[in-house]
Amino acid sequence: MTKTQGRSDVLTVSSRHRTDAIDITELVQERVTEAGVGDGLCTVYVAHTTAGVFINENADPDVPHDLLATLDHLVPWERNYRHAEGNAAAHIKASLIGTSQSIPVRANRLELGRWQGIFFAEFDGPRERQVHVSVIGR
Amino acid sequence: MTKTQGRSDVLTVSSRHRTDAIDITELVQERVTEAGVGDGLCTVYVAHTTAGVFINENADPDVPHDLLATLDHLVPWERNYRHAEGNAAAHIKASLIGTSQSIPVRANRLELGRWQGIFFAEFDGPRERQVHVSVIGR
Amino acid sequence: MTKTQGRSDVLTVSSRHRTDAIDITELVQERVTEAGVGDGLCTVYVAHTTAGVFINENADPDVPHDLLATLDHLVPWERNYRHAEGNAAAHIKASLIGTSQSIPVRANRLELGRWQGIFFAEFDGPRERQVHVSVIGR
Repeated sequence: MTKTQGRSDVLTVSSRHRTDAIDITELVQERVTEAGVGDGLCTVYVAHTTAGVFINENADPDVPHDLLATLDHLVPWERNYRHAEGNAAAHIKASLIGTSQSIPVRANRLELGRWQGIFFAEFDGPRERQVHVSVIGR
Repeated sequence: MTKTQGRSDVLTVSSRHRTDAIDITELVQERVTEAGVGDGLCTVYVAHTTAGVFINENADPDVPHDLLATLDHLVPWERNYRHAEGNAAAHIKASLIGTSQSIPVRANRLELGRWQGIFFAEFDGPRERQVHVSVIGR
Repeated sequence: MTKTQGRSDVLTVSSRHRTDAIDITELVQERVTEAGVGDGLCTVYVAHTTAGVFINENADPDVPHDLLATLDHLVPWERNYRHAEGNAAAHIKASLIGTSQSIPVRANRLELGRWQGIFFAEFDGPRERQVHVSVIGR
């Protein structure tokens, strides 16, 4: 019989530009360590509609730059959107990148690949944002 | 020692157009409440290949409209697709938006942000569709 | 009181082309069966930054073909990317398709829809790749 454990925490992230990618890997790993869940699943959840979260290379900052630039190209800030607040593109990019990411946890560590980092993606900043880190397992 | 609980239910959703977004937030929250899982993770899973699920603003209906219109622009219904059934664009949009969404649960409530709602995304309707709501935790 | 169970395994997948989609449904189901988790959640996680995973129709191979071809069209291999390694497009496509997929498990079976299969998506192959299959539940 194993013990079920879990924990949910909220990180505060401050974006610096309208479009921004912030590496939160270490902050998420700290929460996983604190949760004391040996094996399980970590879910990083963004509680906003104009921001998201993605996993990609965090060695070369040109990688998240190219991703955000391509999203700007595919979903330009100005187009004949209906949403009257002027940030329709930010809402759309949030749903293309995704609102959450789930990462397996083993022996208290996120099972990230060698080159993988977790990025908070800002699409309508700069703002202070909240990211939920939920760990579930045993 | 905590008790592990969980529950899996199926929602039926009826779409009204070929492309449609249907707010299922309340239906999902009802299943979370019934599951009696205090803290954990809720996964909303679409068991179809031409539909998906996304999380975005549910205050202004123009937000899901703009998202679906942008997907139509990026992945037009007619293009030189190979798939002979005529709905290749619907399959592609399903994988861009995503087949599932996971949301942390705390004290029996989905930890959605203030403006967030859960939308079933129809890309080849109108049809009757099935959405699985799985809650796991303690 | 139920018993919490879980298991995490790693699959090795060999891609055959620069861009490729490989049906891993049976391999994932085998891991779910071995895990012995009756009801819960299976997460398929790709530990790479130029590959991903998606769920779509696995009856007609034209469906994954059209998806990959559309991603090539939206995110061409050559563009004015900054990332100097020449594979920026692969990184971008990985984040558009997604690094993981979560599927509910009931009675030891993935709750996939009738036409759904799980595909490993290669965007910078051919290579040998690792896919984590994590099952959590009771």
